[in-house]
Amino acid sequence: MQTSRNVLAAVVALSFCAAGLVNAADRVGQWTPIALEDQGSFAVGGTVLTAPGAFDPRKPLDPAGQTYHGDHLYAFYQVPVNARPLPLVMWHGAGQFSKTWETTPDGREGFQTIFLRRRFAAYLVDQPRRGDAGRSTVEATIKPTPDEQMWFNQFRVGVWPNYFDGVQFARDPETLNQYFRAMTPNTGPFDMNVVSDAVAALFAKIGPGILVTHSQSGGPGWLAAIKSPNIKAIVAFEPGSNFLFPQGEVPAPMPSAFDTLQGVPVPVPDFMALTRVPIVIVYGDNIPSAPVDLPGQDSWRVRLAMARLWVDAVNRHGGDARLVHLPENGIRGNTHFPFADLNNVEIADLVSKFLAEKRLD
Amino acid sequence: MQTSRNVLAAVVALSFCAAGLVNAADRVGQWTPIALEDQGSFAVGGTVLTAPGAFDPRKPLDPAGQTYHGDHLYAFYQVPVNARPLPLVMWHGAGQFSKTWETTPDGREGFQTIFLRRRFAAYLVDQPRRGDAGRSTVEATIKPTPDEQMWFNQFRVGVWPNYFDGVQFARDPETLNQYFRAMTPNTGPFDMNVVSDAVAALFAKIGPGILVTHSQSGGPGWLAAIKSPNIKAIVAFEPGSNFLFPQGEVPAPMPSAFDTLQGVPVPVPDFMALTRVPIVIVYGDNIPSAPVDLPGQDSWRVRLAMARLWVDAVNRHGGDARLVHLPENGIRGNTHFPFADLNNVEIADLVSKFLAEKRLD
Repeated sequence: MQTSRNVLAAVVALSFCAAGLVNAADRVGQWTPIALEDQGSFAVGGTVLTAPGAFDPRKPLDPAGQTYHGDHLYAFYQVPVNARPLPLVMWHGAGQFSKTWETTPDGREGFQTIFLRRRFAAYLVDQPRRGDAGRSTVEATIKPTPDEQMWFNQFRVGVWPNYFDGVQFARDPETLNQYFRAMTPNTGPFDMNVVSDAVAALFAKIGPGILVTHSQSGGPGWLAAIKSPNIKAIVAFEPGSNFLFPQGEVPAPMPSAFDTLQGVPVPVPDFMALTRVPIVIVYGDNIPSAPVDLPGQDSWRVRLAMARLWVDAVNRHGGDARLVHLPENGIRGNTHFPFADLNNVEIADLVSKFLAEKRLD
Repeated sequence: MQTSRNVLAAVVALSFCAAGLVNAADRVGQWTPIALEDQGSFAVGGTVLTAPGAFDPRKPLDPAGQTYHGDHLYAFYQVPVNARPLPLVMWHGAGQFSKTWETTPDGREGFQTIFLRRRFAAYLVDQPRRGDAGRSTVEATIKPTPDEQMWFNQFRVGVWPNYFDGVQFARDPETLNQYFRAMTPNTGPFDMNVVSDAVAALFAKIGPGILVTHSQSGGPGWLAAIKSPNIKAIVAFEPGSNFLFPQGEVPAPMPSAFDTLQGVPVPVPDFMALTRVPIVIVYGDNIPSAPVDLPGQDSWRVRLAMARLWVDAVNRHGGDARLVHLPENGIRGNTHFPFADLNNVEIADLVSKFLAEKRLD
């Protein structure tokens, strides 16, 4: 059976080559088929609550003696034919879920499918207490509070209702409709330890891989890498908070028009784990270099500044971290979601190049 | 480009044939690659709330003038190479999400991938106010109430902690762990109209297709078919409530040890929509034929009984509905999730046969 599988995989792979459709840059077009070796989903991590007492099957609504499995993450994975050795684990930011990496708001392919075409297996996470991983062990109330103009600004699409000049974001109404509907609430309090434990459990299950974080998952992403030696590299898009510094090296708090950003101290031996894997941090455009009174933009000024200090700290301790501020590299107009912006194939190329350079592909 | 695409599709399809791996029953094994033409995700349906006032970008946390997009559904879709004309839209039941149709609790392929291998495009839904479609327009509080022994019984795996003899459910602890973690809470009140509106909007977007429902989605599934002429057939696994009868033909309420099941009246012209599409309803095993004092099982006694009356009503009005009670067909041990049970390929064969018979494949 193994032989037949390999034969068929080869035939499918050959059929791609025969048609001459895989070019040197591995940029297979949207219109070519994707050959999947496997796909599926599972929960991993989490805990179990048990109510005291004895369960009575005649009183099903009485919690006595019943259990509650919660605080796991949910992952949907796909493995392409002839997959590269290390999978990508893609972890959303605040208010988001796996959709972050799926179809873009304007209907193009996201990182899930782009990297599948580049022969990377992909695991898309809904973190504990979010989306399909909704069974939280802590109670929460969810209110439909109108907040989307805040997100439009905070995610640096523009200053509502105006788009930034040259922003890499389509301006049709349906794109904005999809963008706003790509959010889903927390079903329990956000907890750095709970979410990083679950991601560490994911890596314990799947083995070595590359972690891709976005915004809110940046901080717990560092923590997951401290907890799991299977995280072999980190690609962090616009980490937004919880920068982990060695005890005694935490920079001064950074006030902005949005909040005051604080670094988080961790023991030096923990921090050292972050010096053992290559890390790239990517920020987009329209981040002011001097204070402005618009919270949505000013918050990113201090985040970018602290990320620079963080990269310095990692490298000072012997690590291999770098920060790519896209406009400094001539790539303009990116929002808080570079991997979903109009130029996301160019952004994917940067990631591919990083992984190739580090021999992780 | 279109030509290249077709050429490549043909090459990939031929490569499958050349390897001799597609047998007559279309039962492609788990170890053969899947060739995807396309995949992605989107939100559809829903509504928009707007807070009165004017948005001030300097006060991002003030809802004034801000919007909230909610009550949409979220769909993840995959289109295989050489897809059959009609896609399958798969809609979960109570407390569940898309996972219902993905990997089974014991780690095998679910209906999503089984039918992809059989060349059906599949759209997997998270209904409004559930899972990844969590932005509800109505507030909700989510409590971690231990309830899993209830579900074990209600879903007819057994009578906790015992499994039914011959149940089509793996008995290792990890299967049960995955089973319980495949649940996610409502993030707003369940609303027949909200969820059926969103599914009708999905069919308006994608065109004609086949609706596959489970349990709680059975009732709103009938309603969606009344609302959308694009629903060309319904496969309903164990519909649990909200059987829609013509006004004046609602059967007497049916008491059980769990609750009292009531039919729901709809205007006759609405009901007639359900006589225009083929419908198959499937129930599993361990449903008692006479009253028992165990709510988990007794609830299904009255549901199966009302489903039989419902099929009679549809056919009396000129429709094409049938009920398949699996044990009457010699298929034993199925739980409330026949499509995920150990014999789910056999269950998929029944669905394939139904679709072939109705010339819907």
